[in-house]
Amino acid sequence: MKSQHINPFIEATISTFETMCNMKPFRSGKLQVRGGMIFTYDFIGILGLSGQIRGAVIMTMPIPVGMRIVSEFVGETITDTSSDLMDGFGEILNIIAGAAAAKIHDYKISLALPTVMIGKDQQMHANQHKPWVIIPMSLPDDIGNFNIEVAMEET
Amino acid sequence: MKSQHINPFIEATISTFETMCNMKPFRSGKLQVRGGMIFTYDFIGILGLSGQIRGAVIMTMPIPVGMRIVSEFVGETITDTSSDLMDGFGEILNIIAGAAAAKIHDYKISLALPTVMIGKDQQMHANQHKPWVIIPMSLPDDIGNFNIEVAMEET
Repeated sequence: MKSQHINPFIEATISTFETMCNMKPFRSGKLQVRGGMIFTYDFIGILGLSGQIRGAVIMTMPIPVGMRIVSEFVGETITDTSSDLMDGFGEILNIIAGAAAAKIHDYKISLALPTVMIGKDQQMHANQHKPWVIIPMSLPDDIGNFNIEVAMEET
Repeated sequence: MKSQHINPFIEATISTFETMCNMKPFRSGKLQVRGGMIFTYDFIGILGLSGQIRGAVIMTMPIPVGMRIVSEFVGETITDTSSDLMDGFGEILNIIAGAAAAKIHDYKISLALPTVMIGKDQQMHANQHKPWVIIPMSLPDDIGNFNIEVAMEET
């Protein structure tokens, strides 16, 4: 995966949150290139990428942070793990992935449907030969942290 | 999603397990068409589908069942949540999805990279407008149960 394919995901995340959730996230740590087991937050959305690449993009955060961003997104306060929460989370990820794919000009990328999950003690695994890039992000006013995670390989 | 697009996933699952894992799974319950929150087993692989459809396919089972099938797949006994376990699980899902996509002639389908996770008390969410089809399966000799789950919509 090339570094010029990571920036579009960062830019798309910032612009989507600014436009759709009325808050501007910022990078809060170094990019990590990871193989092996990777702990995630309890709330996770996964969206597959295919076409001239094969990949996936993940957005993961604590559930209360997810409730906050989806509340902003849908314009009403969400306080439980409802369909509105889960669908809204998937839709935000879908918008980020679509915006990032549109910024990557050297490959035609098509999007799968987002899958949204909650759980406990979740770990995902990055194939040693197809590492993930972990992008640590934070939201202002101590709302909380989240990660955008991207894996991509040329087909 | 049309019923003729479900059978290819069932057939591909049976043939992949027979060929790659030396065991023949069978349908162990009615297909369920589900919206809303859906409990999964602790071990889950997710693979996005795109092209002329947008979708995803999930394989989920208890971790000990996953260890058993991946042990057969790689030809050595796996007893911990190692990279071999996670990569093997993703690869079995990849083979199933590829075989199913090849059987679906009315759409060109391309595959994303599989994402493999373990966790506890995991629930996924099916958008009310894009329900999942849950296919309950069992392995012989009381090895255990697993689900194949498919969501698909025309683009």
